[in-house]
Amino acid sequence: MFLIPSDLRQEIASRIESLRGNMKAAGADAIIAASTTNIYYTTSRVFKGYVYIPLEGDPIWFLIKPDVYEKEKDVVLIRKPEMIPALLTEMGYTLPSAVGYEFDDLSYSDISRLMKLFPEAKPVNGSTILRKSRMIKTPWEIDRMREDGMHQAEAYRRVTRCYKEDMTDLEFQIEIERLLRLEGCLGCIRTSGNLMDINMGSVVAGDNADVPSPFDFTMGGAGVHPSLPEGADGKTLRRGETIMVDMNGSFNGYQTDMTRVWSLGDLPALALKAHECSRSILRACETMAIPGTPVADLYRKAMQIVEGEGLSQYFMGHRQQAPFIGHGVGIQLNEQPVVTPRSKDLLEENMTIALEPKFVIPGVGAVGVENTYVVTSTGLENITVFPEEIQEL
Amino acid sequence: MFLIPSDLRQEIASRIESLRGNMKAAGADAIIAASTTNIYYTTSRVFKGYVYIPLEGDPIWFLIKPDVYEKEKDVVLIRKPEMIPALLTEMGYTLPSAVGYEFDDLSYSDISRLMKLFPEAKPVNGSTILRKSRMIKTPWEIDRMREDGMHQAEAYRRVTRCYKEDMTDLEFQIEIERLLRLEGCLGCIRTSGNLMDINMGSVVAGDNADVPSPFDFTMGGAGVHPSLPEGADGKTLRRGETIMVDMNGSFNGYQTDMTRVWSLGDLPALALKAHECSRSILRACETMAIPGTPVADLYRKAMQIVEGEGLSQYFMGHRQQAPFIGHGVGIQLNEQPVVTPRSKDLLEENMTIALEPKFVIPGVGAVGVENTYVVTSTGLENITVFPEEIQEL
Repeated sequence: MFLIPSDLRQEIASRIESLRGNMKAAGADAIIAASTTNIYYTTSRVFKGYVYIPLEGDPIWFLIKPDVYEKEKDVVLIRKPEMIPALLTEMGYTLPSAVGYEFDDLSYSDISRLMKLFPEAKPVNGSTILRKSRMIKTPWEIDRMREDGMHQAEAYRRVTRCYKEDMTDLEFQIEIERLLRLEGCLGCIRTSGNLMDINMGSVVAGDNADVPSPFDFTMGGAGVHPSLPEGADGKTLRRGETIMVDMNGSFNGYQTDMTRVWSLGDLPALALKAHECSRSILRACETMAIPGTPVADLYRKAMQIVEGEGLSQYFMGHRQQAPFIGHGVGIQLNEQPVVTPRSKDLLEENMTIALEPKFVIPGVGAVGVENTYVVTSTGLENITVFPEEIQEL
Repeated sequence: MFLIPSDLRQEIASRIESLRGNMKAAGADAIIAASTTNIYYTTSRVFKGYVYIPLEGDPIWFLIKPDVYEKEKDVVLIRKPEMIPALLTEMGYTLPSAVGYEFDDLSYSDISRLMKLFPEAKPVNGSTILRKSRMIKTPWEIDRMREDGMHQAEAYRRVTRCYKEDMTDLEFQIEIERLLRLEGCLGCIRTSGNLMDINMGSVVAGDNADVPSPFDFTMGGAGVHPSLPEGADGKTLRRGETIMVDMNGSFNGYQTDMTRVWSLGDLPALALKAHECSRSILRACETMAIPGTPVADLYRKAMQIVEGEGLSQYFMGHRQQAPFIGHGVGIQLNEQPVVTPRSKDLLEENMTIALEPKFVIPGVGAVGVENTYVVTSTGLENITVFPEEIQEL
């Protein structure tokens, strides 16, 4: 197996180029990455080991396992990271004076061990640098996410057929999990942060949507066990309730994030109004979100529409409200930028952002739509194309 | 909702007691925990926030969200961890002089932030302390794991029925995932370390078992995409092959780890011999593994049996061999002790250990059995009771 498949060499080279721009800006003359997310981003592979990326000279893979790659000059087998500095010197590299380590992605123990490799070097937060590069997708990455969106929509098209009378929310979710998997969903969600425990996504029905959860997702839910207090609670689906489906869209190392709502029987006017309000917010954001727009403006625009409709108390939750309406998405489910009122980011072309203005209506459940978008020069392009109306089961 | 359900107060108190013993031995006069695993272990809940456990005085929950607990004196709502020291002082606590932080469980950024709360205190590795307590289960925890074992076995009983002719390994796995979920499996595996990406476990068939993987599981597999190089590779199941099923046994915050083998048609004698050798290793370990036995002795005994049978080249993998034959299991899939030749641990009563002596036979696939055991005064008690013979599909 070759280091990088030949059709991806240019792709990886362009990511390294972008990374070097951000390294320079952050004052790092090397980055050493070991998280699966950043190894995959910088190599198109996942392995146990370290990617060493200097400002000048070829990146080196210090590989622990698996030992399946052709031995090119850029792949060095090691038993432990302590071997890296001597190997770099041997290969003619000058040891770095400021190193980016993945402060947010690796444990304190892992980083402390790595920092001993370069005791003279100034440590810099490499997670921030890598995240900044990952925030702007290449055309190749966007193509992968378009594929994700098509597969996810294809699976969502069959959601209605999963329903059988007297089903619980969890039974409904399990059938959706199965059809996503049969559609090719890898089932494993890479996330950032330590409060993102989840299986393959969230299905919340009725008032369960209003149960606050500890996790950093937008929606709550009691879950079926206190060890995983989130999502479906095992109750039978009932008439007059909504069922919000926000399931895993990862098919190829990237992913899309898409939410749609199903319902049983008629819904009260308030729920229908809130759902339409979510769609109005998306329409407004789609137009205004051109490169250069402050990310915080999307949040402000959403709040303005919500307040205009008198729906503030239901927005982004009711008993507990999430402080954001969207987030970057890519290799990880939660990437940069985060759409909060405090964001200092400006939109850039080829960012990919999930926007999820949602409402929780007591006695009814959650409503609203989530799409994943690409930022283009003229606004947002939706890559999770699927009817947005509430669909009856 | 109350802080700790009344039937669990004694249980949590006894865990804190055990933890304090290990804190004293490690020279820590307080621990501050924030990982979901250790918050669940020390509180029976999962929340966003921090558990502060001093050597003396009641543990305090510094809770960010969800705000659903009765306001007892031990629950304090905070917005950010920087509020903790002043609150402790206000509550009459002396600030600690040596603090255990979760060095192995939280990111470098998270730990660096926490260490600023107690700038005068000596930092100690709290992950090690917590792991040591978690290694010895309480009777209540063992009961939970017995439940896991029963549910997992109940699901495995229906595995044969999942098979349909010309199925791929992945299609077979998806049906097993579904029946585990319907049996109550939570589907989310808590693990330790950053090379444990997985969905709901592993199904490997034929030579795919011999494909080396970067992850820290015993078995390999190419996976269906380079972003997740592990497990089922999407090939059609074929006659003369084994299908090893090592799927998720987490039903209640704890879990069991159990592997069984299915086959299509007749298998060569070598594969059958290796499978029986795995069972002989388990029988030998079950008897010798009494409290006080060095964990490394289990590994040595296994190697002795394997060498006696002339099967070393297939043991724990063929192209890539795993350096252990078992591991502790509990809230996390991979707990202490790890059964390696270098282990310095002695077995203790109420440890729970998964033993998985496995073989990879080229051209056939993986064979062997994995059970989860409780260490008792007279040896190992198997809590994953299910026929160990290879079952034909």
